[in-house]
Amino acid sequence: MSELLKNYLGGKWIAGTGAGTALFDPVLGDEIARVDATGLDLRAGFAFARETGGAALRAMTYRERAAMLAAAVKVLQGKRDDYYAIATANSGTVKNDSAVDIDGGIYTLSTYAKLGESLGDRHFLLDGEPTRLAKEPLFQSRHVLVPTRGLALFINAFNFPSWGLWEKAAPALLSGVPVVVKPATATAWLTQRMVRDVVEAGVLPAGALSVVCGSSAGLMDALEPFDVVSFTGSADTAAVIRSHPAVTQRSVRVNIEADSVNSALLLEGNAPGSEAFDLLAKEAAREMTQKSGQKCTAIRRIFVPEALYGAAAEAISARLAKTTIGNPRNEGVRMGALVSRAQLNAVREGLAHLQAQAETLHDGARHPLVDADAAVACIVGPTLLGARNAAGSDAGDRLHDTEVFGPVATLIPYRDAAHAQQLIARGQGSLVASLYGSDAKALADAAIELAPLHGRVHVISPDVAALHTGHGNVMPQSLHGGPGRAGGGEELGGLRALNFYHRRAAIQASTAALDHLA
Amino acid sequence: MSELLKNYLGGKWIAGTGAGTALFDPVLGDEIARVDATGLDLRAGFAFARETGGAALRAMTYRERAAMLAAAVKVLQGKRDDYYAIATANSGTVKNDSAVDIDGGIYTLSTYAKLGESLGDRHFLLDGEPTRLAKEPLFQSRHVLVPTRGLALFINAFNFPSWGLWEKAAPALLSGVPVVVKPATATAWLTQRMVRDVVEAGVLPAGALSVVCGSSAGLMDALEPFDVVSFTGSADTAAVIRSHPAVTQRSVRVNIEADSVNSALLLEGNAPGSEAFDLLAKEAAREMTQKSGQKCTAIRRIFVPEALYGAAAEAISARLAKTTIGNPRNEGVRMGALVSRAQLNAVREGLAHLQAQAETLHDGARHPLVDADAAVACIVGPTLLGARNAAGSDAGDRLHDTEVFGPVATLIPYRDAAHAQQLIARGQGSLVASLYGSDAKALADAAIELAPLHGRVHVISPDVAALHTGHGNVMPQSLHGGPGRAGGGEELGGLRALNFYHRRAAIQASTAALDHLA
Repeated sequence: MSELLKNYLGGKWIAGTGAGTALFDPVLGDEIARVDATGLDLRAGFAFARETGGAALRAMTYRERAAMLAAAVKVLQGKRDDYYAIATANSGTVKNDSAVDIDGGIYTLSTYAKLGESLGDRHFLLDGEPTRLAKEPLFQSRHVLVPTRGLALFINAFNFPSWGLWEKAAPALLSGVPVVVKPATATAWLTQRMVRDVVEAGVLPAGALSVVCGSSAGLMDALEPFDVVSFTGSADTAAVIRSHPAVTQRSVRVNIEADSVNSALLLEGNAPGSEAFDLLAKEAAREMTQKSGQKCTAIRRIFVPEALYGAAAEAISARLAKTTIGNPRNEGVRMGALVSRAQLNAVREGLAHLQAQAETLHDGARHPLVDADAAVACIVGPTLLGARNAAGSDAGDRLHDTEVFGPVATLIPYRDAAHAQQLIARGQGSLVASLYGSDAKALADAAIELAPLHGRVHVISPDVAALHTGHGNVMPQSLHGGPGRAGGGEELGGLRALNFYHRRAAIQASTAALDHLA
Repeated sequence: MSELLKNYLGGKWIAGTGAGTALFDPVLGDEIARVDATGLDLRAGFAFARETGGAALRAMTYRERAAMLAAAVKVLQGKRDDYYAIATANSGTVKNDSAVDIDGGIYTLSTYAKLGESLGDRHFLLDGEPTRLAKEPLFQSRHVLVPTRGLALFINAFNFPSWGLWEKAAPALLSGVPVVVKPATATAWLTQRMVRDVVEAGVLPAGALSVVCGSSAGLMDALEPFDVVSFTGSADTAAVIRSHPAVTQRSVRVNIEADSVNSALLLEGNAPGSEAFDLLAKEAAREMTQKSGQKCTAIRRIFVPEALYGAAAEAISARLAKTTIGNPRNEGVRMGALVSRAQLNAVREGLAHLQAQAETLHDGARHPLVDADAAVACIVGPTLLGARNAAGSDAGDRLHDTEVFGPVATLIPYRDAAHAQQLIARGQGSLVASLYGSDAKALADAAIELAPLHGRVHVISPDVAALHTGHGNVMPQSLHGGPGRAGGGEELGGLRALNFYHRRAAIQASTAALDHLA
């Protein structure tokens, strides 16, 4: 039987008392580890995190906590080889795709270490300037941001076991708020290992970082009014979390990042052969295949002017055709596996669901598998769909509503700018849209028009072809989240991320008393 | 039969088709009006607000919308006498208490008119400076705040039919977001009249402001992903709203202001006869009696050092004893009615519930009624309870958990500063706490310690005795809301209030494109 990964809660490593759930290698099919949370005393463990971990973190200043994050970065950097090995075995990703998760996570943590240093040796943050409440400036209002007195529970998704942990833990810990992470079972190993390494290195105070692997049963029940919960995953689970009494009755603050049918939009006036046209084709193919399309931010809908439908289909398909798929241990392979058989089945079903409303422009099923057994490996080739006739009607609802979490996207033609906006809006709110064009003013106008429907708009023009950070790549400097279907959450965005872990309060007092806060 | 107040929805005045629910004079017992929302096409009305009202508002700049608010202020100022007459008849409040609602609402609206002017002739707001995403500053991230494309639904409380409308509508309309208000039935008349006056004056575009009176059935069902809902009222109804599919599945953004057992804390070292001691007694008595204690922000728990329990009981009781209660039309009356028989019963029940764990230091039942029939009028005298023995144990849970929405507060002794903090924390999060003392440093430290548990900390020291704005008085410059039991919401706080009605987005683009946003 494979190793049973322990949980870390209440300052102790504890094995679950149940049989556990197995984690598999999605390429070879081997069982590689088990997780189990049966028998954990969640209430006691959460109390330890709040009281011991929280108190220790809050006793430190922002600058001290930033140094603590920098120390964690060093620990993680020293173990990168281990993490790549785990990613290959448990996520089935090629090296470049593992990097997005592993190095992306470490980079995000190091970014917050740097941002935190700028906050100095304070225990709370000032929010804006004092405002007079009387004619004489002797009685004023000043807003402060103070760390919440609870803990931060992260219920995370399977696609980013490293980045998903650190992009949330970095701002939480910097804010002085202890963290409990519940990784998705399928890929829990990497999260658990990283927590283990950081805990064993002794760079965090006891109770600052805990990990519970396995079932999420009981986690929400153990939350109290000053706790926060951040969830990444399906809209269905998001609804269950939002309906839980911890949220509805105890006002536990909740952040959700859920389904998103993200768009790429080629503006009018960029003919085949133009730089903007080529940038679209390149980015669309890259987004579809990176991490086998298992990114919440990946491009799912590609909008081009009607007249360019055929040319765009050809250009993107030509790039996809070059994507070798198979065992990530083979250096010739560019795209590895989906994380599990469940995901493989879900992608196949989702693809069939979309194909009922779309033609298949490039069929991923035709890609041969390199070094992998099709009966075992959870691998699918990249598939480009097309909805040539969706332009003229309200047809194609599935293309706007359904997030197929794999290497699948749909090309959709539009008639004019207003029509493109209408079609994009049918996604009901997404994490990100990207724009392609060469006119700076037209790009800026289109970006503002799309902003209410997205957490991020990524604008690719020829002058930044070699510089831009990628449609789906989440930079810690920028907001990550989106309205509506995308869950309505806000993560990252530089120091904006700290807001979720702080309570804002107005202090109304004499100017003499307020001077002591400055 | 009394007048049936019409609803304003879809740009039309529409009477409900049902029999209606009656509104009463809580002093005289007369039926004064009826409300009914039966038969309204909420979906069509909401679509009109979003599409016609929203589009018209968003076509205006912030400065133009600020001028629109200033025009609404003029309309309302011209009708103040009507509003005072309605408040007397429907809320049973004395003139000073009506002013808190009516003039407080108009002042808040005028504050946003002024704040909005400073935002200039823009259609969206910039949030922070651009941040480099590449080594060269040619590709950067800039955050913007854009008005949400939905509507704002306000489900409001009975105690502030005017202020409750305008404190929410001012930032919403300034943001470019259309408003639908559903006032609490018991006091819906004033809200409905104010909307009528502003609509008839033609100062707002069609669809910008609507009012639905009567049942709230179906309102939440009609919400879509980019809408927001703001609720003020009981924790039970808050939980129902938070559990609604509009919130759990469609990510409708929700703001809650619910129960709050607010505290007043006399710091150690302020003996009877000191200015700080007297300021506490004065503020406690004022807060208990203003609007008959029907303010979410009113002082409910009064904490004093153990040794001062008797002296504080005496000082507060002496002030309460002078409060004449009865018909607000009699100029000798200082405190009028509760808004309804339902509230009268709720206050009586709540009082008995607390009395099981407290002694009665000043009994409101002994106050004679002036010009009012005790069998008809919904009037109770102010009652000060005391929990002399709560200091030594975990007893007295009801005193920390139960918000009695009337002229009732409990005096509780504390042993030392840490004990006071513990006792206050048992409120599980409140809207506001006030501090009384004369040492600026000690006051600032205590304020920061209380900040994580409160949306606002109001500090009263002798140097601001004549200037401070009052424990329970919500200033538009300061945040209104509180964590935990208080609902976790954020309202007001100057321009911070606009955040709720905007979506934040990161625009990642070439510096040339970003320059077009500045």
